[in-house]
Amino acid sequence: APVDKGVDYANYFCTYAFLYHQKEMLSDRVRMDAYFNAVFENKHHFQGKTVLDVGTGSGILAIWSAQAGARKVYAVEATKMAEHAQELVKANKLQDVVEVIQGSVEDIVLPEKVDIIISEWMGYFLLRESMFDSVICARDRWLKPDGIMYPSHARMWLAPIRTKLADQKMNDFDGALDDWYNFVDEIKAHYGVDMNVLTKPYSDEQKRYYLQTSLWCNLNPNQVIGRPAILKEIDCLTATVQDILNVQATVSSSITSESTKFCGYAGWFDVHFRGNTENPAQKEIELTTEPSEEYCTHWGQTTFLLNPPLSVGAEDDLIIHFSMVRSKENHRLMEVDLGCEIRQSSGNLLQPFTNKFHIE
Amino acid sequence: APVDKGVDYANYFCTYAFLYHQKEMLSDRVRMDAYFNAVFENKHHFQGKTVLDVGTGSGILAIWSAQAGARKVYAVEATKMAEHAQELVKANKLQDVVEVIQGSVEDIVLPEKVDIIISEWMGYFLLRESMFDSVICARDRWLKPDGIMYPSHARMWLAPIRTKLADQKMNDFDGALDDWYNFVDEIKAHYGVDMNVLTKPYSDEQKRYYLQTSLWCNLNPNQVIGRPAILKEIDCLTATVQDILNVQATVSSSITSESTKFCGYAGWFDVHFRGNTENPAQKEIELTTEPSEEYCTHWGQTTFLLNPPLSVGAEDDLIIHFSMVRSKENHRLMEVDLGCEIRQSSGNLLQPFTNKFHIE
Ligand SMILES: Nc1ncnc2c1ncn2[C@@H]1O[C@H](CSCC[C@H](N)C(=O)O)[C@@H](O)[C@H]1O
Ligand SMILES: Nc1ncnc2c1ncn2[C@@H]1O[C@H](CSCC[C@H](N)C(=O)O)[C@@H](O)[C@H]1O
Repeated sequence: APVDKGVDYANYFCTYAFLYHQKEMLSDRVRMDAYFNAVFENKHHFQGKTVLDVGTGSGILAIWSAQAGARKVYAVEATKMAEHAQELVKANKLQDVVEVIQGSVEDIVLPEKVDIIISEWMGYFLLRESMFDSVICARDRWLKPDGIMYPSHARMWLAPIRTKLADQKMNDFDGALDDWYNFVDEIKAHYGVDMNVLTKPYSDEQKRYYLQTSLWCNLNPNQVIGRPAILKEIDCLTATVQDILNVQATVSSSITSESTKFCGYAGWFDVHFRGNTENPAQKEIELTTEPSEEYCTHWGQTTFLLNPPLSVGAEDDLIIHFSMVRSKENHRLMEVDLGCEIRQSSGNLLQPFTNKFHIE
Repeated sequence: APVDKGVDYANYFCTYAFLYHQKEMLSDRVRMDAYFNAVFENKHHFQGKTVLDVGTGSGILAIWSAQAGARKVYAVEATKMAEHAQELVKANKLQDVVEVIQGSVEDIVLPEKVDIIISEWMGYFLLRESMFDSVICARDRWLKPDGIMYPSHARMWLAPIRTKLADQKMNDFDGALDDWYNFVDEIKAHYGVDMNVLTKPYSDEQKRYYLQTSLWCNLNPNQVIGRPAILKEIDCLTATVQDILNVQATVSSSITSESTKFCGYAGWFDVHFRGNTENPAQKEIELTTEPSEEYCTHWGQTTFLLNPPLSVGAEDDLIIHFSMVRSKENHRLMEVDLGCEIRQSSGNLLQPFTNKFHIE
C-alpha cells in the first residue's frame, strides 16, 4: 500500500522539525567525528564537485561539504528544519555554494546529476526509519555513474549478551499483571462488571510492551558474552530497496564468557566511508555503534530480551536464525524473529527456541 | 480543511486502541462513580429505552445502560477496542441488548433514533480532543426530539493559582539555554560551524516547551488563590460546534489569599447529569475535576504558568480575558490567550499583560 504522506509526517518526520532533536544528533561526538573526518580527510573527493545531502536537517553535512571545497551542494530536507538550515548556511557565508531545498528527496528535481551523495540516514539498528529507501531513490535518480556514496558501506551486527534488564522487565510485566487482577476485582466489586474476559488481551498487550519490544541500551563490552556476527553487509552504491526489505541470516556465535546467563541479543551497526573503486578514500573512516566503554552514540544498541535467561558456558555454540521485516502498520518500524539453537560445549543440543520482537 | 482520517488516527485515536489506556480511565474513581450513579440512580431514564454510547471504548457505559434496563444500546467505537467491548458485552451476557459497532460515529447508520446519548467525551480542560464535535453530530442525527444527553451540561472554570512549577519551569528553561550556549561553543571549536544564528529559534522552541505549554497538575485547593470563574457553560442538548470552536470570555476573580504569588491560572471543568426539562433526573449527579484534597481525577487541572510570578494580596481584583481556539495544525489541540488586568485593593492599576499557551 502506498504511504500516506500526512500519516508519515505525523508518525515520523514531525520529530525532526525540532531543533532539540537535531541538537541531540549534533551532540553525538562519535557520529560527528566520523562524518567530519570522512569529509575533511578526503577533501579530494569534494573539491570542485557537486554534492547532494539527503535529509540535511540543520544543514551540517552540506556545510562541511562546502567547506571541504564542493562547487555546489544541494541540501534537501523534508521538514521545516530546512528554514533553519538555510539560516545556518547564510550565517556561515556559504549561500553561494549550498542550496537548501525543502521537500522530500523523492519529489525534488535537480538541474544536474551529482558526484557525491552524503546522508546520515541510519536509524536504530541501522534500518529503523527506512530512510535508506530515500537515499537509494536519490542515488538512482541523481548520482553520476562514477559517483560516490557517503557512507559507502554498512553492516548489521548481532551478539548474545547478559543484562539485568531481562529480569527487570519480567518483574515489570508481573507487576502489571498483579495490578490488573486487582483492577478486575475492584471493577467487579464496585461497578458490577466482570472484566476477566479481557485478562488475556491485556496480558498480551503488556507482554508485547515489556518483553517483546526491543530496548535502547548502551551496553558495556563485558556484557557481550559471545562472538558478534555480521547479519548483513550493504554496499550503498548498489543496494536496492528489495535487498533491505527483508533481512534474513543464519549466523553462528560461540559463547566466550565462562558460565554466565544468556539474557538476550544486542544488535548494532557500523558504516564506512571508503569512496569507490576508481576513487577510493585517502583515509577510510569507520563509524561504529558497537558496545564501548569510551564511546557511546545516541543509537546505542538495540536489545532483544530472552525470558527467562539461559545458563551458558564458554564454547557453547549458538546458531541464530535472524529475520527482520517491516511492520505492516508502519513501514518505518520493524518486526524481528530470532530463533536459536544451542550446542553446548559437551556436545549436548538444547531445545531450539524462537522469539518475536518489535522495533518501535 | 477537512481532517485526514489517517492522520487523525496517528495523532489521536491510536492511544485509545490500548487496553492500558482504557484501564486508566476505568480506574478513575471520580469519573466512574459519577457515570455509575448517574445511570443507576436514574434507571427511570433507561428502562425500556434505546441508548447510543458515543465512543464506547471498553464498553463500560453501554453495559451499565443495559444493566439499568435499556431495551437496546448501540455502542459505537472508532478503534479496534470495539472488539474488546464486544467480548466484554458477551462475557456479561448482554449481547442481546448491546450492539457494538466499530466505526466513527460520524459514519454509522442506526436502524432507529435513540432516547439517550451517553458519552464520556471530555478531554483535558473539557474541550481538548474536540470529541464533543462527534457527540453533537451524533445528537443531531440520532437523538429523538425529546431525547436526553448524558451528561446534560458542562462548564469550564478558571482560577488564579500559586505553584512552585513556575519557578521550576523557568529554571529548566534557563538550564536548556545554558546547555545550548555550551553546545554552540563546542560545535564552533570542534567542527568549525557557527550555530549562533539558531540561538533565537532554539530559545523560542524551548520557551514554547517549558513556558508556553499547559501542564497537567493535581493542585491542592490551597493553591487556588482567588475566586474561580466560569468561562463557559454548555447545554449538551443545544450546543453547536460553532459554539465551542472559539471560547471567549472576560471574567473577574478577586484574590482571596493574603499576600501571595500569582503564578498562573488553572483550568478545569465539571459536567452534570440532569436529564431534560420534561424528564429530569431523579438524582442529579455532578462530575467535577476541580482541585480537591480527597478526589483526584486523571484529568487533573490544566495549568498555565506566568513568568515571572506576580505579588498579589487579598482583595486585589483580576480581570481576565480568556480566548481558546483550535490549533491550526491539529484540530484536537488548543491555543489559549490569557490577558490579565490587576486592580490592587489600594485602587492602583497594574500594567495589563497577556500570555499565549498551547494545550498539547
Ligand atoms: N525522504 C526524505 N526527504 C528529505 N528529507 C528527509 C527524508 N527522509 C528523512 N529526511 C530528513 O533527514 C534527516 C535525517 S537526520 C540527519 C540530519 C543531518 N544530516 C545531520 O547529519 O545532522 C531528518 O531531518 C529528516 O527530516
Ligand atoms: N468520532 C468517534 N467515533 C467513535 N468513537 C470515538 C470517536 N471519537 C472518540 N471515540 C472513542 O471514544 C472513546 C473515548 S474514551 C471513553 C471510553 C468509555 N466510554 C469510557 O467511558 O470508559 C475512545 O475509545 C475513542 O476511541
